[in-house]
Amino acid sequence: MDYSSFSDTIAAPATIPGTGAVTMLRISGPEALEITGKVVKLKSGSVESLDANSIRYGLVYSDDGSPLDEVMVSVFRAPRSYTGEDSAEITCHASSFVASEILRLLCAAGARMAAPGEFTRRAFVNGKMDLAQAEAVADVISSSSSASLRVAMTQLRGGFSKELASLRARLVELTSLLELELDFSEEDVEFADRPKLYSLLDEAISHVSSLASSFRHGNAIRNGVPVAIVGAVNAGKSTLLNSLLGDERAIVSDIPGTTRDTVEETMTVGGILFRFIDTAGLRTASDEVEKIGISRSYKKLSEDSVVLAVLDVSASEEENETSISEIVSKIDPSSQKLIVLLNKADILSPNINVSLINNLVSSSDNKVIKLYISAKTGFGLDLLKTELVSSQKNLNLDSDQVFVTNQRHFQALLEAGHALENARSSLALGLTPDLVAEDLRSALHHLGTITGEVTPDELLGQIFSRFCIGK
Amino acid sequence: MDYSSFSDTIAAPATIPGTGAVTMLRISGPEALEITGKVVKLKSGSVESLDANSIRYGLVYSDDGSPLDEVMVSVFRAPRSYTGEDSAEITCHASSFVASEILRLLCAAGARMAAPGEFTRRAFVNGKMDLAQAEAVADVISSSSSASLRVAMTQLRGGFSKELASLRARLVELTSLLELELDFSEEDVEFADRPKLYSLLDEAISHVSSLASSFRHGNAIRNGVPVAIVGAVNAGKSTLLNSLLGDERAIVSDIPGTTRDTVEETMTVGGILFRFIDTAGLRTASDEVEKIGISRSYKKLSEDSVVLAVLDVSASEEENETSISEIVSKIDPSSQKLIVLLNKADILSPNINVSLINNLVSSSDNKVIKLYISAKTGFGLDLLKTELVSSQKNLNLDSDQVFVTNQRHFQALLEAGHALENARSSLALGLTPDLVAEDLRSALHHLGTITGEVTPDELLGQIFSRFCIGK
Repeated sequence: MDYSSFSDTIAAPATIPGTGAVTMLRISGPEALEITGKVVKLKSGSVESLDANSIRYGLVYSDDGSPLDEVMVSVFRAPRSYTGEDSAEITCHASSFVASEILRLLCAAGARMAAPGEFTRRAFVNGKMDLAQAEAVADVISSSSSASLRVAMTQLRGGFSKELASLRARLVELTSLLELELDFSEEDVEFADRPKLYSLLDEAISHVSSLASSFRHGNAIRNGVPVAIVGAVNAGKSTLLNSLLGDERAIVSDIPGTTRDTVEETMTVGGILFRFIDTAGLRTASDEVEKIGISRSYKKLSEDSVVLAVLDVSASEEENETSISEIVSKIDPSSQKLIVLLNKADILSPNINVSLINNLVSSSDNKVIKLYISAKTGFGLDLLKTELVSSQKNLNLDSDQVFVTNQRHFQALLEAGHALENARSSLALGLTPDLVAEDLRSALHHLGTITGEVTPDELLGQIFSRFCIGK
Repeated sequence: MDYSSFSDTIAAPATIPGTGAVTMLRISGPEALEITGKVVKLKSGSVESLDANSIRYGLVYSDDGSPLDEVMVSVFRAPRSYTGEDSAEITCHASSFVASEILRLLCAAGARMAAPGEFTRRAFVNGKMDLAQAEAVADVISSSSSASLRVAMTQLRGGFSKELASLRARLVELTSLLELELDFSEEDVEFADRPKLYSLLDEAISHVSSLASSFRHGNAIRNGVPVAIVGAVNAGKSTLLNSLLGDERAIVSDIPGTTRDTVEETMTVGGILFRFIDTAGLRTASDEVEKIGISRSYKKLSEDSVVLAVLDVSASEEENETSISEIVSKIDPSSQKLIVLLNKADILSPNINVSLINNLVSSSDNKVIKLYISAKTGFGLDLLKTELVSSQKNLNLDSDQVFVTNQRHFQALLEAGHALENARSSLALGLTPDLVAEDLRSALHHLGTITGEVTPDELLGQIFSRFCIGK
């Protein structure tokens, strides 16, 4: 299929037929209004003659002339539409039978069923949005917290694209300085001001690196800040997870694709999505299967940014000492926040030796939070939630900061950074300007793949096929 | 809650948030445009100042001023809207988080969440449609075949209401004739022409009875024509059901609320919905549980309008004779269509004695269809489908005939018919005109409950509570 020009007209449901009160169908392409006009009849006038951005009541008739449904039809004219093409929307009753009949009539009148993401792909190709913005559409749809939505909306509204544009402008300036020099290379003259080149290059490298490093946070915002729940068997880890999710279980969902050996569930606290990971019990394993589970627990530990260490105040001092020592030894204080939970606080005479705990955890980080809780009664969990939110203060959600949330963008930034580092080395080694310019062009290419200036059709196909039909 | 006047503004999703590409939210009530305008900001101008029936791009902002979503907003002005009130529709991205945030903002701006069916209830109260039309909205949404949709659309577009209006006009004429007489009752004069009264009454009775009797067909159209699959154990009933559903299984659904002792599945053939019932095997039962199953099979048989009698051509003549005799003895030829299926026709030397079958079934109906089929290979099933469709020729789907599909309407028609019969008896017995008029007013009352002229609030509540939110 040739995606560079769209001579045909597509149609698809934009909501799921058969659910809710109404179903919306979308039509886009050069013949969108003519085709819609063949299917939807107005009380007076025709769909083709409607003003742009107007919505009217109409009737759809079956092939045999009997009324199929009463609908609302709205009309958009190129280029002022989502796709940039002439477009129409039909809102019919929410029967999947009715929706499929209207789609059949639209196809009989000259439309074809849209591929997944094809409306947004047309918007991209027609210059209504760049690739990063198009990808943000899917993120907005799947956002489940105010933080993830804010990041996706910044991207959809072009915030990330603007950052990239300023970065690209800087690199184009650099490249043109070098290419000027290249034109006169026979004469062995250095036109470009070397200190200025270094300074521009360093700024670009730092810009790329700061964008790339926002991915860690961006990813946490989009997929949830990972919170590992660790501790000895029977310390109350699963009870804690259940109590935390509690009433909010209705909006909790499993993360697709995670392995079933650790339980992962998400919950939004204070506008931030947290991903709770209930790891296998940490203790010296006697059998092989158990050993694998424990090794996975530690692997999770090393990747996660918040660690909830659950101790059982009714357990012996030795057990808790072993447990906390083991956890502390696995934590990276530079990237992980430790919160020690002294669980079963509802038991009257706790065996816990708080000063011992203090000594053990202070060795890694003086500011470790220690909270008495009862996973069973819910005591202390409000305080824990407050601590979880304040542990993410660094996300700076109130600013307009751009976060990279997309693995593809992150990879492209890494590649661009790598090319820029190469350019800097070449420059330092006194290599010819054409080699340095080559590296700069490579960096520009990788940045260009993010917004879609230089993205091959195959990759576009991959990106848009992950969209739903009708978007 | 006072439903007779609507001083407040309601909001609800009209599609299911979190699925598809977009979610549509509806707002209706005196402040619909003002409230929507507080939540959706346009590029220029405001929602309140938009022309009726126009649709624009807009932005929704969070409480903290950050952009929450890009939306389309459309505006309808009273009385030219679904509810008859000022109304707006907001189409946002299909994130359930986004949709619930926008609903929260709408409620903060003065709207309240709509109750199920409240938009349609307002349309009814504001005179945009009568009760029978409002009930047809739910039928259109749940229609799953062209026949059921056609019946629902006739009702939605007022076909049934027109029939009732002409019937009511006739009864009002009758009543006024009698009441004229009543005014002069002291003088013992008969003003009303008795033969004309009888004739008008007989016409009305026949009209009511013909509408009521359409319920059998109407119900079959809406819920599926019942097709009982009966026959001896191992005759191949379940295999037949599976083969029939075959490739169409994707659009097959269980009927909610049916007991699990018989399997019921529906399939649309030739635009008509059929409900297949795989009954328990018919044979002399040895244990109690089996006896109950068989008794239920027969009960199904007596209710169904098509009976597929499955015989096994490889079974002994005696077995098939017993089986077909038993089935034929349970059938009511006046309301049930028998199709005899000679199954396992793929077996080379069938034991079936066709003339014996002919003799047995011809005793009940000479025109019984007999088909050789193989449920296993699919042989003969196309012919069977053709026969099923032609068995329903009496549905007269190509005409504009009104079918009663609603149990409530059917009951009201029966009550009205009963009152009219009483009026006729009173007249025949020479009772005073006031008694006859009383019966006629009772008939008018029952007919009025169908279109909602005299429907108590409690019943309205029941009817609309079965609607989905947002309709």
